[in-house]
Amino acid sequence: MRRFPPVDELADGVRAGDRSALGRSITLVESTRRDHQDLAQQLLTLLLPDTGRSHRIGISGVPGVGKSTFIEVFGRMLTAQGHRVAVLAVDPTSSISRGSILGDKTRMPTLATDTNAFIRPSPTSGTLGGVAAKTRETMLLCEAAGFDVVLVETVGVGQSETLVAGMVDFFAVLMLAGAGDDLQGIKRGILELADLIAINKADGDNLKPAMRARTLYEMALHHLTPISPNWQPPVQTCSATQREGLPDIWDAMCSHRDAMHASGEFASRRRQQAQTWMWALVEGEIRRRLREDPSVAAQIDGLEEAVAEGRQTAGTAASGVIVKLFGD
Amino acid sequence: MRRFPPVDELADGVRAGDRSALGRSITLVESTRRDHQDLAQQLLTLLLPDTGRSHRIGISGVPGVGKSTFIEVFGRMLTAQGHRVAVLAVDPTSSISRGSILGDKTRMPTLATDTNAFIRPSPTSGTLGGVAAKTRETMLLCEAAGFDVVLVETVGVGQSETLVAGMVDFFAVLMLAGAGDDLQGIKRGILELADLIAINKADGDNLKPAMRARTLYEMALHHLTPISPNWQPPVQTCSATQREGLPDIWDAMCSHRDAMHASGEFASRRRQQAQTWMWALVEGEIRRRLREDPSVAAQIDGLEEAVAEGRQTAGTAASGVIVKLFGD
Repeated sequence: MRRFPPVDELADGVRAGDRSALGRSITLVESTRRDHQDLAQQLLTLLLPDTGRSHRIGISGVPGVGKSTFIEVFGRMLTAQGHRVAVLAVDPTSSISRGSILGDKTRMPTLATDTNAFIRPSPTSGTLGGVAAKTRETMLLCEAAGFDVVLVETVGVGQSETLVAGMVDFFAVLMLAGAGDDLQGIKRGILELADLIAINKADGDNLKPAMRARTLYEMALHHLTPISPNWQPPVQTCSATQREGLPDIWDAMCSHRDAMHASGEFASRRRQQAQTWMWALVEGEIRRRLREDPSVAAQIDGLEEAVAEGRQTAGTAASGVIVKLFGD
Repeated sequence: MRRFPPVDELADGVRAGDRSALGRSITLVESTRRDHQDLAQQLLTLLLPDTGRSHRIGISGVPGVGKSTFIEVFGRMLTAQGHRVAVLAVDPTSSISRGSILGDKTRMPTLATDTNAFIRPSPTSGTLGGVAAKTRETMLLCEAAGFDVVLVETVGVGQSETLVAGMVDFFAVLMLAGAGDDLQGIKRGILELADLIAINKADGDNLKPAMRARTLYEMALHHLTPISPNWQPPVQTCSATQREGLPDIWDAMCSHRDAMHASGEFASRRRQQAQTWMWALVEGEIRRRLREDPSVAAQIDGLEEAVAEGRQTAGTAASGVIVKLFGD
């Protein structure tokens, strides 16, 4: 790997919106080398005052729901309005498939060549938590580089949605109508996270099932206490290929932001996210230390196993872990 | 505080089902004194082979839903069938109100004097995590004392439901029908956790609204992917005061247990719970160490604040916490 320029130089480049400086900064952030990580933190510290000013939007949905097309069309709509749009991804499968989403910029051909857009695939190595960590820091870099909308894409797999919801201001979930009344099950937890549900591919023969799906999802959501007293998550239909319904979705995102700002929730959610993030990093580092020494790692595995099998109490096993960590 | 008998004596007493030994063991477990905690872990280790054989059932619901009466009548139904029933509670409000639930055994007068039942109020001090920790260990003691059904009561407040759901085999949620169609909102997250929803007070004039509520909750649940492929959480109606619907609820709990045993999920859920528990204790201990020294605690607060206000990156603040913990 090439040597990196001094961090203040990189920081200046990022602030100036230089794409090459941004790209190299992200590479630095994504590096697993210890010295690179130190430099990355220095860089992020320098840029911190320039971060935080974007509209952070998570976009989730299972494969096949049309996320690429949606983001391509949605992103182009925003750049046409004068926004600068960064597209990032948290994809827990990418370390296996080397980029099942966003690995190939040809998925979003027009957005990829748009000078007001910046597309970065998911980091392809590390644990899901590690991938999310890199994505969050990349988001900060993009903000410092002047992107005012950051779209964080994720597939609907395991914990990735929770992690992405924990780093954005607004979490949108794309869904499909099933055939007839045979709707896909709503994944548990998604109603928890969604600030908006959009039934995509609502066009042609699919329009009627999409409207029906919308009604059903609305009913499911209706009886839930909203996350915020100031926001009732809407269910909308759209067709990315037909360019229909996307302005309404953007309107909803902006209304949400206005409502959150007015109530003070915007700031408190960001505060909370940052603190949670700090503790997640602490936890990650503690787990890393426990895994660093193979003999310690094996002992931890042994303790976990003993607890799982009921041979040892959770309390004594926890004490065992603490001894490994602190030596007392 | 009196001195405790030797732990092997206490263990023998608990195994023999001696209520006094059980009570003193719980007091030992609940003690915050370091030497008592060590003794408690020794005791739990001795008793561990005798634990795990109860049906662990969480019962949740907001104040006013009729939990006390439900548990009283439900518990009596079970003891009449020959079961031995322990009733515990995780109540995050009890440290303020000194026992808002279960603090007063007159809430369950007949169950409290039933020789086949054992009622223990929520620990009244400590963090919610600490309260849950004590309750979980108390559950183990009750199992060793031969109670084959453990009911863990909780109020629908904050994280307490998640903690209780994480220590039981079955999580039941009591609800009320609202007036007319004006149903109470279903708390977010509850659909995640519920293995069964029971609409209580389904009697008299309230019967019709209760049936309507049942249908609406069923619709809301219907479109969710169940937690387990082998269990669709039912919505039932009951009236604890009229002694109606309770046998059906118990049947559902037993069917659930059979289904979980048949699929192997019972064992894997218990394994998972024990491991999660161990890590929660590790985390609790780490937080305790960070809080132990007031000057360190103040510095941690300062780091949290700096991150929340965007003056410091989460990464550098996390490093600061790690330095406080490990000195490097």
